[in-house]
Amino acid sequence: MTDYNDNHQAETASEANRFRDEEGRIDPAWLMRLRTALAAAQTAEIVEMIAPLRTADTGDVLESLENPERLALVMALGDRFDYSALTEVDESVRLDLLELVPNADIARGVANLSSDDAVYLLEDLETVDRDDILAQLPAFERLSLKRSLDFPEESAGRRMQSEFIAIPPFWTVGQTIDYLRAERDLPDEFYQIYVVDASYHVLGIVPLDRLLRTRRPVSIEQLMTTDIVLAHANDDQEEAARDFERYDLIEVGVVDENERLVGVLTVDDIVDVIQEEAGEDIRLLAGVGDEEVSDSTLDTVKSRVPWLIVNLCTAIVVSLVIGLFNATIEQMVALAALMPIVASMGGNAGTQTMTVTVRALAMRELSGRKLRRLITREMVVGVINGIIFAILIGIVTAIRFANVDLGVVIAMAMIINLIVAGTAGILIPLTLDRLKADPAIASAVFVTTITDVVGFFAFLALAGLWFGLF
Amino acid sequence: MTDYNDNHQAETASEANRFRDEEGRIDPAWLMRLRTALAAAQTAEIVEMIAPLRTADTGDVLESLENPERLALVMALGDRFDYSALTEVDESVRLDLLELVPNADIARGVANLSSDDAVYLLEDLETVDRDDILAQLPAFERLSLKRSLDFPEESAGRRMQSEFIAIPPFWTVGQTIDYLRAERDLPDEFYQIYVVDASYHVLGIVPLDRLLRTRRPVSIEQLMTTDIVLAHANDDQEEAARDFERYDLIEVGVVDENERLVGVLTVDDIVDVIQEEAGEDIRLLAGVGDEEVSDSTLDTVKSRVPWLIVNLCTAIVVSLVIGLFNATIEQMVALAALMPIVASMGGNAGTQTMTVTVRALAMRELSGRKLRRLITREMVVGVINGIIFAILIGIVTAIRFANVDLGVVIAMAMIINLIVAGTAGILIPLTLDRLKADPAIASAVFVTTITDVVGFFAFLALAGLWFGLF
Repeated sequence: MTDYNDNHQAETASEANRFRDEEGRIDPAWLMRLRTALAAAQTAEIVEMIAPLRTADTGDVLESLENPERLALVMALGDRFDYSALTEVDESVRLDLLELVPNADIARGVANLSSDDAVYLLEDLETVDRDDILAQLPAFERLSLKRSLDFPEESAGRRMQSEFIAIPPFWTVGQTIDYLRAERDLPDEFYQIYVVDASYHVLGIVPLDRLLRTRRPVSIEQLMTTDIVLAHANDDQEEAARDFERYDLIEVGVVDENERLVGVLTVDDIVDVIQEEAGEDIRLLAGVGDEEVSDSTLDTVKSRVPWLIVNLCTAIVVSLVIGLFNATIEQMVALAALMPIVASMGGNAGTQTMTVTVRALAMRELSGRKLRRLITREMVVGVINGIIFAILIGIVTAIRFANVDLGVVIAMAMIINLIVAGTAGILIPLTLDRLKADPAIASAVFVTTITDVVGFFAFLALAGLWFGLF
Repeated sequence: MTDYNDNHQAETASEANRFRDEEGRIDPAWLMRLRTALAAAQTAEIVEMIAPLRTADTGDVLESLENPERLALVMALGDRFDYSALTEVDESVRLDLLELVPNADIARGVANLSSDDAVYLLEDLETVDRDDILAQLPAFERLSLKRSLDFPEESAGRRMQSEFIAIPPFWTVGQTIDYLRAERDLPDEFYQIYVVDASYHVLGIVPLDRLLRTRRPVSIEQLMTTDIVLAHANDDQEEAARDFERYDLIEVGVVDENERLVGVLTVDDIVDVIQEEAGEDIRLLAGVGDEEVSDSTLDTVKSRVPWLIVNLCTAIVVSLVIGLFNATIEQMVALAALMPIVASMGGNAGTQTMTVTVRALAMRELSGRKLRRLITREMVVGVINGIIFAILIGIVTAIRFANVDLGVVIAMAMIINLIVAGTAGILIPLTLDRLKADPAIASAVFVTTITDVVGFFAFLALAGLWFGLF
């Protein structure tokens, strides 16, 4: 019971210190207290408020402040500030703050970080600042960071942490445990041990739980798993992320072009990659690039204008198509009010199919047989939905305008456009994918342009023919 | 050097056995060989081809087959078939296959699974099948699975694995290691050890790496971390996933309503949750629900029709708005061709803002100050984009129709609609979120309906006034 009470007290204490409200947002009163302390440069109060926070929470706090307050916070904490909090904030916040903090302070902070976090902070800095900071680091760390920074952006080599534990296969479990107990310079956290030869080629891995449940005399060679997944340093981080997902991995060794172990990727970094990549598709489909919530107004405008220009061009094309039927519309102005219905339904149906396809392509779900099944399904769905909505809109139109012929014309146009929508929705992303373009970027423009053009054209042309208006 | 050669040979061998092509898809020739073996019931060949595969790869193979072949594969492998492969396939594939396999075989397979995988297979089965299978399991497993199945769907309790390692605080490192070496009934994989009191309240955790680097006499109480994150069994799995992301966790203890430890969540399950949730937003925005690529045609139609019906209704409303201006359009038919441009640009700009907002809400990125900043930014972006595209379309229109007045009218309508688009794009998802509705589901309809109505209305009404056509 004492134990339970202790535990209970600890929890109550943490409730009082808790700085998040019910919704999981930072408590406004807490934040106000911090901002007052920052404005008054009350170092003791600032340290007391920030020190108990987890790294990610400190990151959230930084995001909620203004630039001068962020600087004041970092300066007030001094060497107690954990620079890994900066890996948890938006890029624009990080760059603004690192611009303000003196390089000497950054260098001291970076020296305490694991190599993956250090690279994350350094990679987007201006070259002159980055070199200045690197020059202030101990030689060993400088070289290891430089090597990581030489790998391409968003590669496994950039994301990896250079600290890992490698042992020879002829050791025993006992020797390994003794080594781990004696060695001071181990990674902060690790989940498996790499078994390597003299040239650092990976022979196998030993998960820590297996090491712990095995008796001391057993040899590592007997214990290790040889069925291992490795990443190449030049691989895209997305490829590595797919392996983590597919094979439920916690940690993966990273090897260089000579197959020598140079670092490890851990699942916590990969979770961020998966989150980013998943968000990327949705943003690309909507034409908002790699925007972040904290981007400036100007950056936001810059990121959105190109997509809107493309859409302006396709809207003008659609307008030219409608213009072909001026005479028809003049004779029967009801067509003008009805025509957007056909186009809009096509756009929505096409977007549905396209979204499913883009997502499946992003997750590499489409192999030969599944792909053929999907294409067939989408076309059949187009036909069925076409028939359903042709009947609905046909009846509504015939009643609204007391004109059965008009109902028939719009029904026919609807069937045509929904079949086209299904077909375009699947074939356009697939074609872009085959052409090695990212289907998430360009599919939406193509699909809606096609459903708009076909929607307006089919409806107006059929109406012209049916009513003899040409 | 011998080591390297051995390693190299191992790699060449695995290349020959490799069943994926360059693109990471299942090799068609390999698949054809398997299908032939399945058709001819060549058990030895089937076992030889499937046995070396990882679980996830077996799942991919199952997805590429037809139902009778899937059954043949499971039956040919018999007790060698790892039922956890079924956690890696689409729901429709899993349910189809489990329907075909006799319950007695499923029960034998389920008995060998970790509890989280077992629950995953059982949860979507018909009650009668599920009870039949549970009845064939050993009592201990049956009870533990029943308890997990009693937690709500998509809760931490459903996702958790009931196997974990719990020790008292008064043990030493040495005692713990001896226990791990002696005990036969340990979880398959584990990353941390839970320190509990006699009632299974969690006092702390010990990561395995820390256990390994500490000398035998040190007490667990000294070694354990008390700053721990726990999940409640009734919590939504998304909430738990956010903690994993935020705090870079590998494993989290799950407690029941009495704060007693009942299971653990591991990051590999959470990666799947994150992937699903990220995909959910994109699908909801496009109105395709929780569809999967392998869903049947009928299920697909059912999932898409509701959204299309909503869109049909809003399209009819838009059409009624246009109908108000029949007389205006009749007098100046060029308006009919131009009006979709204003509406379409508004729709696109609104979708951009809405996507950024929905995504930020999903990731809980919007606290008070950031939110106010975002609202201001989006409105200013609306004004700037409004001006840019007003000028562009104004000039194009004035030239195309040799009519400066028409250019002025469309420019004014464009500014109005892009400001409305930015405002609606941010306020609609925020309002839905405040009303506890999922902004990803309904935002798109509201935003595009508003930009359509405002786009057509502003343009046609301004034209009517400017040219005196009313």
